[in-house]
Amino acid sequence: MNIQTKPDIARKNPSRAPATGDVTVGPRAGGRKVYDTGERFADLRVPFHQIDLHPSANEAPVVVYDPSGPYTDPAATIDIARGLPDVRSAWIARRGDADAVAVPRVVRPEDNGGATGEMLAPEFDNSRRTILRGRAGRPVTQLEYARAGIVTEEMEYIAIRENLRRAKDAQVMRDGEDFGASVPDFVTPEFVRDEVARGRAVIPANINHPEVEPMIIGRNFLVKINANIGNSAVLSHVADEVDKMVWATRWGADTVMDLSTGRNIHNIRDWIVRNAPVPIGTVPIYQALEKVDGIAEDLTWDVFRDTLIEQAEQGVDYFTIHAGVRLPFVPLTANRVTGIVSRGGSIMAKWCLAHHRESFLYEHFAEICEIMRAYDVTFSLGDGLRPGSIADANDDAQFAELRTLGELTQVAWDHGCQVMIEGPGHVPMHKIKANMDEQLKHCGEAPFYTLGPLTTDIAPGYDHITSAIGAAMIGWFGTAMLCYVTPKEHLGLPDRDDVKTGVITYKLAAHAADLAKGHPSARLHDDAISRARFEFRWEDQFNLGLDPETARCFHDETLPKEAHKTAHFCSMCGPKFCSMKISQDIRDAARGQNDSATLSSAQIRAGLTDMSEKFRSGGSKIDVSLA
Amino acid sequence: MNIQTKPDIARKNPSRAPATGDVTVGPRAGGRKVYDTGERFADLRVPFHQIDLHPSANEAPVVVYDPSGPYTDPAATIDIARGLPDVRSAWIARRGDADAVAVPRVVRPEDNGGATGEMLAPEFDNSRRTILRGRAGRPVTQLEYARAGIVTEEMEYIAIRENLRRAKDAQVMRDGEDFGASVPDFVTPEFVRDEVARGRAVIPANINHPEVEPMIIGRNFLVKINANIGNSAVLSHVADEVDKMVWATRWGADTVMDLSTGRNIHNIRDWIVRNAPVPIGTVPIYQALEKVDGIAEDLTWDVFRDTLIEQAEQGVDYFTIHAGVRLPFVPLTANRVTGIVSRGGSIMAKWCLAHHRESFLYEHFAEICEIMRAYDVTFSLGDGLRPGSIADANDDAQFAELRTLGELTQVAWDHGCQVMIEGPGHVPMHKIKANMDEQLKHCGEAPFYTLGPLTTDIAPGYDHITSAIGAAMIGWFGTAMLCYVTPKEHLGLPDRDDVKTGVITYKLAAHAADLAKGHPSARLHDDAISRARFEFRWEDQFNLGLDPETARCFHDETLPKEAHKTAHFCSMCGPKFCSMKISQDIRDAARGQNDSATLSSAQIRAGLTDMSEKFRSGGSKIDVSLA
Repeated sequence: MNIQTKPDIARKNPSRAPATGDVTVGPRAGGRKVYDTGERFADLRVPFHQIDLHPSANEAPVVVYDPSGPYTDPAATIDIARGLPDVRSAWIARRGDADAVAVPRVVRPEDNGGATGEMLAPEFDNSRRTILRGRAGRPVTQLEYARAGIVTEEMEYIAIRENLRRAKDAQVMRDGEDFGASVPDFVTPEFVRDEVARGRAVIPANINHPEVEPMIIGRNFLVKINANIGNSAVLSHVADEVDKMVWATRWGADTVMDLSTGRNIHNIRDWIVRNAPVPIGTVPIYQALEKVDGIAEDLTWDVFRDTLIEQAEQGVDYFTIHAGVRLPFVPLTANRVTGIVSRGGSIMAKWCLAHHRESFLYEHFAEICEIMRAYDVTFSLGDGLRPGSIADANDDAQFAELRTLGELTQVAWDHGCQVMIEGPGHVPMHKIKANMDEQLKHCGEAPFYTLGPLTTDIAPGYDHITSAIGAAMIGWFGTAMLCYVTPKEHLGLPDRDDVKTGVITYKLAAHAADLAKGHPSARLHDDAISRARFEFRWEDQFNLGLDPETARCFHDETLPKEAHKTAHFCSMCGPKFCSMKISQDIRDAARGQNDSATLSSAQIRAGLTDMSEKFRSGGSKIDVSLA
Repeated sequence: MNIQTKPDIARKNPSRAPATGDVTVGPRAGGRKVYDTGERFADLRVPFHQIDLHPSANEAPVVVYDPSGPYTDPAATIDIARGLPDVRSAWIARRGDADAVAVPRVVRPEDNGGATGEMLAPEFDNSRRTILRGRAGRPVTQLEYARAGIVTEEMEYIAIRENLRRAKDAQVMRDGEDFGASVPDFVTPEFVRDEVARGRAVIPANINHPEVEPMIIGRNFLVKINANIGNSAVLSHVADEVDKMVWATRWGADTVMDLSTGRNIHNIRDWIVRNAPVPIGTVPIYQALEKVDGIAEDLTWDVFRDTLIEQAEQGVDYFTIHAGVRLPFVPLTANRVTGIVSRGGSIMAKWCLAHHRESFLYEHFAEICEIMRAYDVTFSLGDGLRPGSIADANDDAQFAELRTLGELTQVAWDHGCQVMIEGPGHVPMHKIKANMDEQLKHCGEAPFYTLGPLTTDIAPGYDHITSAIGAAMIGWFGTAMLCYVTPKEHLGLPDRDDVKTGVITYKLAAHAADLAKGHPSARLHDDAISRARFEFRWEDQFNLGLDPETARCFHDETLPKEAHKTAHFCSMCGPKFCSMKISQDIRDAARGQNDSATLSSAQIRAGLTDMSEKFRSGGSKIDVSLA
């Protein structure tokens, strides 16, 4: 189905350096890249994907959110070996609250799992980088700036980005149920600042990731999606992962998590972060475990601390920290059908049991906050005890951990850190809302970031769909970011096609959520494609879809002729029966010579009377010349 | 993805007779066909798909619903030219309420759109058939029998079928929100009779379709799904359509609608009905329109009446009748974004306008009831004014028609006819529940049968997913049957792969709905696959999935070695990090020598203490020999 697939380059020699040719570049189909600048800050260049419609539509272009970065800008020069152009360094320098780290941490063999020679992934050339750290006594996190009443460049960038080029005074259509959210008609930089200050939204943007195009995650903004990539001990290598990251953002991933667990973790991450236009998240405990040869009970605070600094200096934007997996909660999982399914959660549970003591993540949480604050790494408090099956949904273990995450949220906020909360998992539809309600109740409205949830366990190979059902619902209820699930969930590592399918599935789920919440810009996109459908503007319909190539290719399978691109029918009904055509006749007749968009019932009645005359005189047989 | 695809045989010479080789026969993967017989009626042979688990599981087999008919029974002999073996004739004869039609309607050239020679599809050999009609003054419909307190063979068959071989006294797990449904712990023939008598469920089973394996559609039974097939003026032919029908039921379609609109409609339908183990639905107005050369305003009651009799004698089990599209409602659509998108609805709207009079379907509704009653053809009252876009959801036109369908439901019930009600369409999540509530309120709890609904318009090529979200939700709220949507929706005619994808997507949506409603058998399937996952019974996990071949093939892409089928890890985490393995260690340790399924907290604490000892003595490093 995916017509942009490149040969999968997995299993290649890991020591081969990724080349620019390994990633997909070039404009996204159907539209063009456009940029807006800021009012407060002149050096903002906020990207959008703009879809111009056929002149016959006589409509304004449709503007959609575009996280794909320079890769989709024909004017950009891409060089994977150099990394992406710098977006934020000037802003960070202007603020003057960060210093170069005098003695950056030195990369050690164990950072790459001891890989050597042929098995060692190439290093990214960091000779041009300066590693930053917040200056003592000065604000460094977006939360600290927001609390200080400072609107950062990132905040204005985000305000512009979230409005999708709608005019400030544009009439908005509000139709939805938002369950207590406060989505504004128009997003101002001040609104962004206020939401961040309240902790209701996060801007994951490590000061060591200047390449990132700022984005926001919060209940009162567009619902975002995350795509997971990463190699494992079993397979896949550097070029594959960089390519998957670029590919995922091309189709709409707002953030990407690098969940690599095998060798070469450090070097792979460098290549990914330096080339990522979106925030990158990681789970530091995975690498820490590598450093102790995979023996959970050998983990120590020092090894973990060292890993946090290593990854923070690389520029990772958010860390999943499973500090809510406490010793007393572990027994609560013993009677579960699927026990602990979170990797980080099971690692920490094992450590707690091995030492029969409280989690070192929980005990050292304040120090973790100090480190993450110094680089503005956002917390993603991990749900290590999330249910791994319908049977275990909403159980004591899960909610005991959730309450602890709420307690830790307050500690992180006290340290000036940004926080989001991770959520399940596997949850039947009737138990989904309780997850959102509990999270809002216990976590002070910190953004919720959920995996699915999958609404049934019986469809391995189709879990992007079992989970899209739950994701759309929980997004509607208030979840700020949806972590995608691919068709390979439970079965294998996703390849490029799986990544694309997962991203598009989650884009449509997130949009369905925005629509149901009544987001002021959501309906504009649906209505534009619906008008294109009704008016048989096939090219507009393809271009307005989330995947224009696939839509066009499906259409061409049955109606390949170019003539049919303008045909006033499609292959489902054929020319005689096309209901859209018939009802267009009805509307045209009803409208008669009156060309106002909406009609009074008097006008309609008049038009319909004319029409029946016309029909009786036999003028209504539909042209079947294209049949 | 589909690994059973056969070469698409579309565009072949329509005059070629379908051959048995055109359809897929043989056992469904992962399990075996089993049958149960009745207590009241000894000649019932109720089919199930039984999945036996690995001996190490020490679990009872999992039994799932099986609409696939003899095609998946290795013991059955399939001969498309003869049609399926007779299931119901003896029952109908025993009841003695139907007579052979003395002078059956004769097939006329216009029944096949005037196709001749090379373009004429071959006739099915009906020489062995006797066409039946209800005897005057005797009950003929399942509703009439139910009201008379008679439990028919069909009713006991269905009771056995819905229980999925659960023992009557089996302990049931009830966990769900059913919004006022009355799903019983165990289905008795008397319960089936009562639900049919109340009009809350229908058994689509034309007395001229003795090949059908009885099934029921109602809010208090398992949620069913329908697959649409049918050629159009643009393409596809007899063998394709028979093959699609068989293929759709193989993957789980509970009913199939033949929406053919081109030439050869009569002959194609004969081949489909004679070979269909599931109820077949049609939209008679499509063929009626063919008979008047596609000119809506030339339609007459006589042409429509003749078509009803033609199709009823062929054995069609339910008719979509768009009698709710009344003249006064048509102007309500004039200001819609997508007007009237139902083919039948637009045809009738056009007729109403052309003649400026009330719909002949509405005016002759009582006579339609008389005809349908005589063969026990079930009404599917069509939603000709359903919304075709998010913009038009829940508008006046839609709900005006729905109220009329409620009024017609009472008329049909007064005539002894079975009735279900069709629903939308395109509806954003926050407007879905209102559709179910209005339907329950106005249509006397007659079963609701919805198309999707699609929850956003922006993903052409992925509308099986945009609609699965809405389908799962409305199924949870009480919809009895979900009409599938394929990836080709809005773009083209579905091929075999699209049919399979649509069916499996809707099977998982229907199951998610059963789970959320708290259907007593739903959780059994999810829990069995979850235990298989936790215990790394890979083959069991594949076999318990809706699509075992695809699941196995996805797994093998990354871990092809047979050894890995028994590996206690998968490619997502690899051997060191496998969280399921770790938490299994935790549970085993927690359980210690105690092998009871659930543990007291004392037992858990004891086990966990032993475990930390064991861990400290270094026994916990996970075997990585398979890495």
